[in-house]
Amino acid sequence: MIHCSTCGSKVNTEIPPGDHRPRQVCPSCGQVHYLNPKLVVGSLPVWEDKVLLCRRAIEPRLGFWTLPAGFMEADETLAEAACRETFEEACANIELQGLYTLVNIPHINQVHVIYRARLLDTGFHPGEESLETRLFSEEEIPWDEIAFRSISLSLRNFFEDRRRGCFTQREETLLPGTAHLP
Amino acid sequence: MIHCSTCGSKVNTEIPPGDHRPRQVCPSCGQVHYLNPKLVVGSLPVWEDKVLLCRRAIEPRLGFWTLPAGFMEADETLAEAACRETFEEACANIELQGLYTLVNIPHINQVHVIYRARLLDTGFHPGEESLETRLFSEEEIPWDEIAFRSISLSLRNFFEDRRRGCFTQREETLLPGTAHLP
Ligand SMILES: [Zn+2]
Ligand SMILES: [Zn+2]
Repeated sequence: MIHCSTCGSKVNTEIPPGDHRPRQVCPSCGQVHYLNPKLVVGSLPVWEDKVLLCRRAIEPRLGFWTLPAGFMEADETLAEAACRETFEEACANIELQGLYTLVNIPHINQVHVIYRARLLDTGFHPGEESLETRLFSEEEIPWDEIAFRSISLSLRNFFEDRRRGCFTQREETLLPGTAHLP
Repeated sequence: MIHCSTCGSKVNTEIPPGDHRPRQVCPSCGQVHYLNPKLVVGSLPVWEDKVLLCRRAIEPRLGFWTLPAGFMEADETLAEAACRETFEEACANIELQGLYTLVNIPHINQVHVIYRARLLDTGFHPGEESLETRLFSEEEIPWDEIAFRSISLSLRNFFEDRRRGCFTQREETLLPGTAHLP
């Protein structure tokens, strides 16, 4: 933030009275602008022994594979966001089966939330943001072509839990790395 | 948002090409500004059969009781946010015992996340944002003086689950209501 979203003046970076962190503060209207983490919400849709992945038609990571997921919108719930993103990216109808992975990514100020889901039919097809949508068995997962670390983490957890016969919700934290974005 | 945070021009409300919802769009620099839900994170700290509540020293709901919770900051994880807020509001040292309630509040564009926690000692005392900090047994909880519906919901779930002998993570959604804020 360079300009105050309330009055348009240039903001300063300073620690407001009673606070302990530098914030963007407007010298004209006095408003303090906080930077809050963004929620990215998606699903891990399953059909028989296979998982639905989408190949990205947009940057970042164009051409790489991902689970359907995206930024949560105003006026919706986490579960609604997961279903909406799955429909937008893969035109897939799902039934959610519970919160599965929570991935903190502090260095990019995001929290990723992935639900396990049951595909209701195989009538999925690419939405506008996908080049391709396809079911993958564990052996077929293109691990080197997964778009984001939070997604490969969720997939690895899923196959491990499935082998164990018990799905456990996990909270994980990704630190800055170079192998995958983000 | 009235002014573009990048260039300071007044923004327009319009549906960008390829999008399906009205957004704040800058006519000067072209930036699209998205409104994303904010995460409020806190804990439900337990000592023996009692729960730690804080009486708010700040608006909204000054003078009402709440669990320690607040807006998640940039550069931290959900768990770190829960511990930080608990220390800031109640100077309390806790050990988290897992994600407990997730409360969607779409009409105010927030998601509340409450962890169960074990108080490590009884050396808690009010932080700057609290008038009072106190342990309450279930019978002592001032239900009519709880600050927010997400907090009374988390407390009710907790006591119900404790009676059942099993804590179950819940995802709940609050719709607009008048009895409590938000
Ligand atoms: Zn201003
Ligand atoms: Zn602009």
